[in-house]
Amino acid sequence: MKVLVTGGHGFLGRRLVGALLERGALTGPDGAEHEIERVVVSDIGSGETLPPADPRVEHRIGDFSAPGAAEALVDPDIGVVFHLAAVVSGEAEQNFDLGMRVNFQGSLRLLDAIRARGACPRLVFASSVAAYGGDMPGIIEDSTILTPQTSYGSQKAAVELLLNDYSRRGFVDGRALRLPTVVVRPGKANAAASSFASAVIREPLEGRAYACPVTGECEVWLLSPRRAVESFLHAANLPAETFGTSRAVALPGMTVTVREMVDTLRASAGDRVAARITFAPDPFIEKIVYGWATRFRPERALAMGFAPDADFPSVVEAFIEDDLGARIVA
Amino acid sequence: MKVLVTGGHGFLGRRLVGALLERGALTGPDGAEHEIERVVVSDIGSGETLPPADPRVEHRIGDFSAPGAAEALVDPDIGVVFHLAAVVSGEAEQNFDLGMRVNFQGSLRLLDAIRARGACPRLVFASSVAAYGGDMPGIIEDSTILTPQTSYGSQKAAVELLLNDYSRRGFVDGRALRLPTVVVRPGKANAAASSFASAVIREPLEGRAYACPVTGECEVWLLSPRRAVESFLHAANLPAETFGTSRAVALPGMTVTVREMVDTLRASAGDRVAARITFAPDPFIEKIVYGWATRFRPERALAMGFAPDADFPSVVEAFIEDDLGARIVA
Repeated sequence: MKVLVTGGHGFLGRRLVGALLERGALTGPDGAEHEIERVVVSDIGSGETLPPADPRVEHRIGDFSAPGAAEALVDPDIGVVFHLAAVVSGEAEQNFDLGMRVNFQGSLRLLDAIRARGACPRLVFASSVAAYGGDMPGIIEDSTILTPQTSYGSQKAAVELLLNDYSRRGFVDGRALRLPTVVVRPGKANAAASSFASAVIREPLEGRAYACPVTGECEVWLLSPRRAVESFLHAANLPAETFGTSRAVALPGMTVTVREMVDTLRASAGDRVAARITFAPDPFIEKIVYGWATRFRPERALAMGFAPDADFPSVVEAFIEDDLGARIVA
Repeated sequence: MKVLVTGGHGFLGRRLVGALLERGALTGPDGAEHEIERVVVSDIGSGETLPPADPRVEHRIGDFSAPGAAEALVDPDIGVVFHLAAVVSGEAEQNFDLGMRVNFQGSLRLLDAIRARGACPRLVFASSVAAYGGDMPGIIEDSTILTPQTSYGSQKAAVELLLNDYSRRGFVDGRALRLPTVVVRPGKANAAASSFASAVIREPLEGRAYACPVTGECEVWLLSPRRAVESFLHAANLPAETFGTSRAVALPGMTVTVREMVDTLRASAGDRVAARITFAPDPFIEKIVYGWATRFRPERALAMGFAPDADFPSVVEAFIEDDLGARIVA
């Protein structure tokens, strides 16, 4: 079976490609497990590191959202698509046209290209907690309305609706996951408004000072990269019926304050490392971040077998192990 | 001030145009009341009757969703837009491409044309109760998620999300109303799955037999044409702040069973008229209609000054007065 990963050079995309190659098999559109013979990795090519060399991997560099690009990507023998390519939240807020073109019209073009092929592959879509916003209840339920307050969240929520309808009509077998903020991201900070939630752990551990753009009281609903990748694979392997009348589901996560993050960092790496953090609130970031939901009761996802991380210290330990080669700058 | 009405030859569009001409004034983008100097009426031209001749009315016949059409419609001096043009629910379900092109891409083109003009007019969008669906609570709250189970409902809900974001960004001053089923519609039955809810009153009153495609137990959440037009005007006149963090609102209505409709008809027009109704359930219609929400607690809309009809008999009386010239076929 052939698998397509859009945004496959991104931070989560690379890990997902690695996990697919390591497992070597995935449930196909027929509901049976199939050997993964090829992973088509689509990316605009800005990622720093390519996924591991493997004869099964085929890189296709280019903008998936450009006219005609999706048609060229979607080979008829693709059984599963992981659609991760997106312009991140901060960038989509600052460049509306880019966000609409990539996050919204690009996703729609991908769905239309899949529909035109007529093969109805499974498709896992990386949606986001940013789809929530506005006047929210204290705890977000599975039945809570999506009233996003960012362009990124609006684009993700609109794609969810169309993915659900394309799935209902049998054009694609879609599954949208509303991802919590994924922490800890390795590498450089990006334009995501949530970038601070990783930087506050990563920067001090790598020996750099970090000025956090939100206060210690700021809460984040988060999930580790390991768990995010597990969730993508789990979503692809679930029978469509599990999703019932909505192909979109809010993933489990955990609520952690920035203060708790700093405390965990101190307990794990010591006072010297934790002292590298200062606070310098940035109104642009705060306006976006404080509009996000941070407390959920994700009953549907839990019943479907999706799981959160055990606790925040284990998230930090996994980062040190996976991304820092078990070495920190004390 | 110039006002644009898309779908202005439709059943609600005609009444809205009539009401605009009669009132002669509407709140403009500056929040002040302005005389209506011109009403631009856009329609594909399939309507049977044109709105009343009035020197202020300018008809523009054509498909608003065709490439370039929206740009031609949106004159820079338009202060208020009423966007009613749409492919109805049954048709959008049977012809997916037509529904996506008109209801979804057409609406998006209209928003983009408005944005390109840079004048930020008020825009009232006719959304629908069909935006709800799936696993719904017994009573729909303002905080209930939209998981539509029809293409029509999905297209309306997706436009709501983008309208909200375009409004948040200041490209347009949008207001989306989730209309209950509007009853009683005059004229011929159309391809809306909800067509029966009007036909069951209209056909017998006009002397024709009617085979109702749903059972007497079927519930409808409904609003009269008079109230729907009142709601469009009210929505245009409200300050944007009234909408808070979401420009979409579920309108008040009333829950009536088909059995209650028939009883009201009998009480109003007698046994002979009511006996013209037979029941012949149609699975295609039933599947769509039973997926719709019928019980709501529209607290937000009520607080904003939107109102339902007084009772169902008054809805039938208004139809006899407005559309049958006070004459029924006994």
